[in-house]
Amino acid sequence: MMESPQSAALSMEELHEAWPVLSVDERLEGFRLLPASVADDFFLALSAREQAELILHLQPAERRTWVRLLPPDDLADLVQAVEPEQAESILSQLDDASRREVNVLLAYAEDDAGGLMNPRFARVRPDMSIDEAISYLRKQARERVETVYYAYVLDAEQHLLGVLSLRQLFQTASDKRVADVMQRDVITVSEDTDQEAVSRLFTEHGFMALPVLDVQQRMKGIVTVDDIVDVVQEEATEDIQKAGGMEALEAPYFETGFFGMLKKRIGWLLVLFLGQMLTATAMSSFEDEIATAVVLSLFVPLIISSGGNSGSQASTLIIRSLALGEMRLRDWWRVARRELLSGLVLGVVLGVVGLARILIWNSISGVYGEHALVLGITVALSVLGVVTFGTLAGSMLPLVLRKFGFDPASASAPFVATLVDVSGVLIYFTVASLLLRGTLL
Amino acid sequence: MMESPQSAALSMEELHEAWPVLSVDERLEGFRLLPASVADDFFLALSAREQAELILHLQPAERRTWVRLLPPDDLADLVQAVEPEQAESILSQLDDASRREVNVLLAYAEDDAGGLMNPRFARVRPDMSIDEAISYLRKQARERVETVYYAYVLDAEQHLLGVLSLRQLFQTASDKRVADVMQRDVITVSEDTDQEAVSRLFTEHGFMALPVLDVQQRMKGIVTVDDIVDVVQEEATEDIQKAGGMEALEAPYFETGFFGMLKKRIGWLLVLFLGQMLTATAMSSFEDEIATAVVLSLFVPLIISSGGNSGSQASTLIIRSLALGEMRLRDWWRVARRELLSGLVLGVVLGVVGLARILIWNSISGVYGEHALVLGITVALSVLGVVTFGTLAGSMLPLVLRKFGFDPASASAPFVATLVDVSGVLIYFTVASLLLRGTLL
Repeated sequence: MMESPQSAALSMEELHEAWPVLSVDERLEGFRLLPASVADDFFLALSAREQAELILHLQPAERRTWVRLLPPDDLADLVQAVEPEQAESILSQLDDASRREVNVLLAYAEDDAGGLMNPRFARVRPDMSIDEAISYLRKQARERVETVYYAYVLDAEQHLLGVLSLRQLFQTASDKRVADVMQRDVITVSEDTDQEAVSRLFTEHGFMALPVLDVQQRMKGIVTVDDIVDVVQEEATEDIQKAGGMEALEAPYFETGFFGMLKKRIGWLLVLFLGQMLTATAMSSFEDEIATAVVLSLFVPLIISSGGNSGSQASTLIIRSLALGEMRLRDWWRVARRELLSGLVLGVVLGVVGLARILIWNSISGVYGEHALVLGITVALSVLGVVTFGTLAGSMLPLVLRKFGFDPASASAPFVATLVDVSGVLIYFTVASLLLRGTLL
Repeated sequence: MMESPQSAALSMEELHEAWPVLSVDERLEGFRLLPASVADDFFLALSAREQAELILHLQPAERRTWVRLLPPDDLADLVQAVEPEQAESILSQLDDASRREVNVLLAYAEDDAGGLMNPRFARVRPDMSIDEAISYLRKQARERVETVYYAYVLDAEQHLLGVLSLRQLFQTASDKRVADVMQRDVITVSEDTDQEAVSRLFTEHGFMALPVLDVQQRMKGIVTVDDIVDVVQEEATEDIQKAGGMEALEAPYFETGFFGMLKKRIGWLLVLFLGQMLTATAMSSFEDEIATAVVLSLFVPLIISSGGNSGSQASTLIIRSLALGEMRLRDWWRVARRELLSGLVLGVVLGVVGLARILIWNSISGVYGEHALVLGITVALSVLGVVTFGTLAGSMLPLVLRKFGFDPASASAPFVATLVDVSGVLIYFTVASLLLRGTLL
C-alpha cells in the first residue's frame, strides 16, 4: 500500500484481510466503502462463488454494472456457481453479443481448455504495418479485449497465421509489416484439451497465454496464465486430498457442508476398513503360532506399518512425478529396478535397528528370554521383506492404475498401507514359522 | 503446430517431446537443428538446470549469445544451478551492467520475492502524456525491458506512485496525463516476502505482475505470474512429498541421485519405526490378555489402522486448507468441534460394519464361538474410540505444529498413523479388559 486510505474509505487490503470472517451483509457494506478506483480490481479478484454472492445481494441497477464488468470466461464461471434461475437473471443483464459468448463457453466442460478460455483476444492482420497494428490494438483495448499481451495474426477465415508479443511489436520499427516479424511456429491447444495438459504446457514453456483452436483450426480464444495458476493450485489440492485417502473436495473446508464432507471421506474409509479385515483373516490362520508364542503378536503393528510407511513414500513420489510429467509409463522398468534397490537398502537399515532394539531391550529387561536373538532375527528379516515389498508395490501401483486408465492419485498412502499390511502379516508369520520352529514354536 | 516443419529443421514440439530421453550430445545436436526463429523460445522455456547443461557444452562464441539472451532473474537461477567456477565463466560473458544486476539478485534468498524478481520493468513518469508514455515504453522494450504488461509510475527517488496496465494505457485518450489515470492504491511486496505469501497474493488477486519494494519503499523489480506458476507447482510438490512421509526432493525423481533419495526417505522411516516400537511396548503390557484370548490379537491391525486412516484424512484436509490460506490458527475451535463430530459419525459407521462382519463371519464359520457378540461389541466400540481420537488428533496436529512455528505439512499421513496406532492399542485393550472380563478374559 502506498497511500494511507482516506478517512471514510476502506483499503482493498483491509477488506481482503477481513473478508473470510465477514457475513454477507458486512461484505456488501465493506465493498460499498471501497474507493471506486479499486472496487473494480477487488471485485475481479474474488472467486466466482464470492462474486455471485455479492451480485445476488445487490440492487438490480448496481448488479448490471458489475455483471458487465466481467469478461465472458469469468461470467461463465459465475453462472455455474449459482442456481439455474439465478443464472437466468444474471444472463439477462448482458447485451446480446456477450450473452451469446457466455452461452458458447457454458457448453464446454469446465476442465477443458474451452472452459478456461476467453473468447476476447487481440487480433491483427498479416498485411498491417507495425504502427497500424498498434493503433488497431489500442482500438480493441478500448472496446472489449481484456488481454493484450499477445496479438494474434488471423486470416479472413480466422485461421491462426502467427503471433506477435507486445514486446516484439514495441521493439520493431514502425514501418515493417506484421507478416515479416510474426512468429509462425505457434504452440496451440484444442478446445477439448484437458486443463491439466494445458497447465503442463504453461509450466514447461513459461507462456503468458495460449491460443485455443477448434477442429477446423480456427482460433476461438485464449487461455491466460493467471487462470492457470488457479488450475495448478486446484489440481494440486485434488491430488493432496486423494493422497490423504479421501475424494477431492469441490470447495474450501469451511464452505463444504458437514454431510457433504462426510460423504467424501466415508467411501475410502469403508473400502480400507473392509480391506484391512483381511489382516484379521490372514492372522487367524496363524492363531496356533500366536497361542504358542504370544510375543510374536507384539511386533505385528511394527512390522506391517514399516511396509505401509515405505510404500506410502514410494507411491507419493511416483504419483507426483507422473502428475508433473517427469515420468512416463514406459519408464516403469527403471522405476522398478531403482525402487527394489531402495527398498532393500531401507529394509536392511530398519531391520538392523529392529534387531538392535530387541537385543538391547532384552539385555535390560530380559523380557524375551533365551530366544531374543532368534526373535530379533525373525523381526529383522520380516522388516526387510515387508519394506522391500512395500516400496516396490507402492511404486508400481500408481503406474498400474495409470496403465489401466485409472487415476494414479488413487494409490493414496492409506490405500497402499492397507494393501501392504495384509502381505506384511503373511511375510512375518511365514518367516517366523521357518525360523522359530523348534525354539519358540 | 500450424506449419509443417521444413525437411531439415526440427520443430520445437518434436524436440521438446524427445528432450527427457536425449543425451547431452543429442540435445545439443537437436537444439542446433531448430529453426533460428524458435530456438530462442525453446531455450528460454528450458529449466535453469537444462539451460546450464546446454550452455556449458557450447563453443565459447555461441555461449555468449545464449547467456546474453537470458533476463537477469533467469541468469541468477542458472548461475545457482552450476558449479562456482562455471558460474564465474558464465558471468564473465555479460556486460558490466547485467553482471551487476545478476550479482544483486544472487544476494537474495531463493525463496524470497527478491530471489524471484526481475529488476527490468517498464517505468513511466507521472507527468508524461499517454502518447509519450507509449513511445517511452516502446523505447524501453527495444532496449531491455522483458515484461511490459504494466507500466510503473516512479518519482525521481524511484518511489512507486502508481501503476497503469497496458490495457488502461491503450484505452485512454492520447492527451491525458499518466498521473490522472494511474491507479494509486497498489499492492506491493517487500524483497524478503516469502514466495509462498507472494504466490498467495497472485492466486487471490489474479495479478499478472507485482512490484517489489525495498525497506525505503523504492521499487526494485517485479515478480511475474509465469514464475509464480512454477512456485505454486514447487510448493505443492513439497507438500505432497512431505504428506507421503519423506523430506521434499529438490529435483525431479530421475535427476535425484540414488543415495540422495535414500537420505530424504530414511530419516522419517526411522523416526516412524522407532515410534511404532511403542506399540510393541504398549501391547506387551497386555500380553496376559492376549495369551488368554488370542482372538483379540487378530483385530489389532484392523483397529489401529482405522484410526490411522481417519487421522490421515483429517490431517491432509487441514494441512491443505492452511497452505491455501482458507483456514487460520484462530479457527482451531471450529475445526475441533467439526472434526470431533465427524470422527464420531465415521466411527459409528465403521464400528457397525465391524460388528456386522464379526457376527456374519461367525454365523458362517463359527470361528469366534459363543463370545462372538461381546467380541464384536468390543471391536465396534474400540473402532469408534480410535476413529474419533484419530480424526481429532489428525486435525489438531497440523494446527499445533503451526502454532509452535513448525511446518504443518510434517503431520504426514504415516506420522499421524503412527501416533494414532499407539493410542489405538491402548484404547482397544482397555475396552477389551472392561467388556470381556468374565467372558473371554
